[in-house]
Amino acid sequence: MRTLDRASAGASAAKAMLTVSRAQKDEALRLAAARLRGGAATVFAANAADVAEARAAGLPAAILSRLEYGEKKLGESLAMLEALARLPDPAGRVLEARRLDSGLVLRRVSCPIGLIALVFESRPDALVQMAGLAAKSGNAIIVKGGREAERTNRALAGIVGEAGVAAGLPPGWLGQVETRGEVAELLALDEYVDLVIPRGSNEFVRSVMETSRAPVLGHADGVCYVYVHGDADIGMAARVVVDSKAQYPAACNAAEVLLVDAAAAGAALPILASALEGAGVSLELCPVAYAALGPGPGRSLKDDGDWSVEYLGLRMAVKVVDSLAGAIEHINRFGSGHTDAIVCASPEAARRFMDEVDSASVYHNASTRFADGYRYGLGAEVGVSTGKLHARGPMGLDGLMTYKWRLEGDGHLVADYANGNKAFEHKDLPEMIGGRDGS
Amino acid sequence: MRTLDRASAGASAAKAMLTVSRAQKDEALRLAAARLRGGAATVFAANAADVAEARAAGLPAAILSRLEYGEKKLGESLAMLEALARLPDPAGRVLEARRLDSGLVLRRVSCPIGLIALVFESRPDALVQMAGLAAKSGNAIIVKGGREAERTNRALAGIVGEAGVAAGLPPGWLGQVETRGEVAELLALDEYVDLVIPRGSNEFVRSVMETSRAPVLGHADGVCYVYVHGDADIGMAARVVVDSKAQYPAACNAAEVLLVDAAAAGAALPILASALEGAGVSLELCPVAYAALGPGPGRSLKDDGDWSVEYLGLRMAVKVVDSLAGAIEHINRFGSGHTDAIVCASPEAARRFMDEVDSASVYHNASTRFADGYRYGLGAEVGVSTGKLHARGPMGLDGLMTYKWRLEGDGHLVADYANGNKAFEHKDLPEMIGGRDGS
Repeated sequence: MRTLDRASAGASAAKAMLTVSRAQKDEALRLAAARLRGGAATVFAANAADVAEARAAGLPAAILSRLEYGEKKLGESLAMLEALARLPDPAGRVLEARRLDSGLVLRRVSCPIGLIALVFESRPDALVQMAGLAAKSGNAIIVKGGREAERTNRALAGIVGEAGVAAGLPPGWLGQVETRGEVAELLALDEYVDLVIPRGSNEFVRSVMETSRAPVLGHADGVCYVYVHGDADIGMAARVVVDSKAQYPAACNAAEVLLVDAAAAGAALPILASALEGAGVSLELCPVAYAALGPGPGRSLKDDGDWSVEYLGLRMAVKVVDSLAGAIEHINRFGSGHTDAIVCASPEAARRFMDEVDSASVYHNASTRFADGYRYGLGAEVGVSTGKLHARGPMGLDGLMTYKWRLEGDGHLVADYANGNKAFEHKDLPEMIGGRDGS
Repeated sequence: MRTLDRASAGASAAKAMLTVSRAQKDEALRLAAARLRGGAATVFAANAADVAEARAAGLPAAILSRLEYGEKKLGESLAMLEALARLPDPAGRVLEARRLDSGLVLRRVSCPIGLIALVFESRPDALVQMAGLAAKSGNAIIVKGGREAERTNRALAGIVGEAGVAAGLPPGWLGQVETRGEVAELLALDEYVDLVIPRGSNEFVRSVMETSRAPVLGHADGVCYVYVHGDADIGMAARVVVDSKAQYPAACNAAEVLLVDAAAAGAALPILASALEGAGVSLELCPVAYAALGPGPGRSLKDDGDWSVEYLGLRMAVKVVDSLAGAIEHINRFGSGHTDAIVCASPEAARRFMDEVDSASVYHNASTRFADGYRYGLGAEVGVSTGKLHARGPMGLDGLMTYKWRLEGDGHLVADYANGNKAFEHKDLPEMIGGRDGS
């Protein structure tokens, strides 16, 4: 099938998804879990072949480990599918309701976006997760995984796709493309593809963002900052910055740069440096910090002016700034708009930082590592967006939803309002909000 | 100033807008109104020069009428600015709130998007309206109007921009570019421009959508449908379709195509045709409708298969469809996703139509002409979007807002939750929703 035909079939399936009931969507999730359990041997065999080939080709250990899909990852996939089946339906929620006039009621109601393209690198579990999110949210999906996981992805997509159809989802609700060329074609088909979600390395996500004509939701960079204000509790600051950097340094919400206010630097810098170095973090120090701390193992002078490096490891840049305003300006210039934290006592300083730092998540006295969908209590995590439109920061299923306006009247005409025979009432109906409408 | 510098200055102004208080934003609106009133003579003189030049160049009467900015349009501009000043602040509204754990509270709070580019054709009043919306919402804005309104736009932008600065908005909150080449450059600067809003003809909006690298919010097409179901009250159907088509046929929410169910066609077609023709509407009839109605003045046979024509005048296409499912499929294929209505008695048919028609607004027994921000009670109208992301259908000030996540803790660390010392509570705090946070 040509990519154009696949995309067109996916768009048709997206329309057909609108006819599927809540019960059918949840049944698709439960059936997918049951059939994955039943078909585990097929999936593991396909995965073993992929892993063997990748190993023979000399791919790095990190990629092999992401590629592997065994009993443990299967168990996580099944738990995720079953948890999704238990969540409330994100579609059909009344978000806004207003009586425009007697007998004329307007409701804004959540509904699926349509056709979503998921492009991801080697983790086959991402396929199951995104297919589950699509089934729950009522979107059709086209997936493209890494070439090295081709057999595994095909086995997983086959089982999950057929389970969905058996539960009543339309054929084509879960489509697959396999080559790079097909992905490039798919990303250009914005007439059919409503949304692209990329998962993978920064370079991978950036290349998807740069080439796609369809809107892309996600993040390429996570250059997060911790700023220690002049009045901060230094012990708390040390704990927060160590957690932000070292609790899991490969995550996008791990901090990369520590800003220390000049007012605190004399007392704070040695304590902060010692806490970070005690956690195994090497430091790249601005000239002021370097002069204050002096040389040491793992310490280096940073004078390249590049404060946007995402180390993703046990390495952190440190800079002394002269004021709260200076910290805000620096973060807005060099940060990636993901998550930034201030450690301070003053509520005024915290408020100003949180108002003026233009990032998806802004924190006071908390580790940047809290920025994810699970910790935010969003139910299911769809991803983290550093864009400002549609969804920002950690996204739950709401990231896969749009809304439509439903107006119900009794033959109401605009002419009656234009000529003054009738007047709008515009009475908000808050009691309807959160209720259910639609299938 | 180069376009790049203008965009960069606009992005800096957008950050500075985050420091402006609610009172300053409203004062900027009131001061702009007062100074426009005081500077009316300057504006009218500039406009007279633009109109004289346009007339001498032989521009069509429709453009001259849109270009004219006299006492009446000034009055509308002032009323709009004063009404905006009285609206509640769209920024700083708590949209979601959750206690993650003791002392760790997460709030999702509305905030401005950043830098918005408004590109529009000849109506100078659009400049005042969008500058007012930007001031109210706390966004910076760069405007580019039509070349034929250059003097008027420069006078208006000068007065409104300076009034804003006098009230405390940052210099550069209202920027201007004047040439087509500058617009093309601006639309490519997605590093600085967060959102583009085009206003003008379909071709103009479509060309902006096709060339912009920054996200565009708006609509090029308004191909709206009215479907008369088999069980419809024919009298109501006739009134709704006449209002949808003829109440103001140049609007994007005017209907362009009438679908009549085969089950009703025999009785309904003559009544609907006579009602439309009585309102001066000429009809392009599908072969089945043409055979049923026969020839007549203004009637023509439509056999080109193009059901996506936006007539924007007293002309309507008519097609007989064989079922509700056929109507839905036809609308999803040929409509523009703007506004579509069903006229029917059966609640089941209405529900199915509204669930499955994939449009921004779906109506039961109401005229498509209701689709606008004022009639929806949105306070201020920003535009109508046929995209599905961020904002869909008529947009109020919410279309110019994003949100950020504000997390306040007391030194909370992720390590404590990862190692099991603490557990998340995730208690929703509905009593905080709708409240105020931030400046």
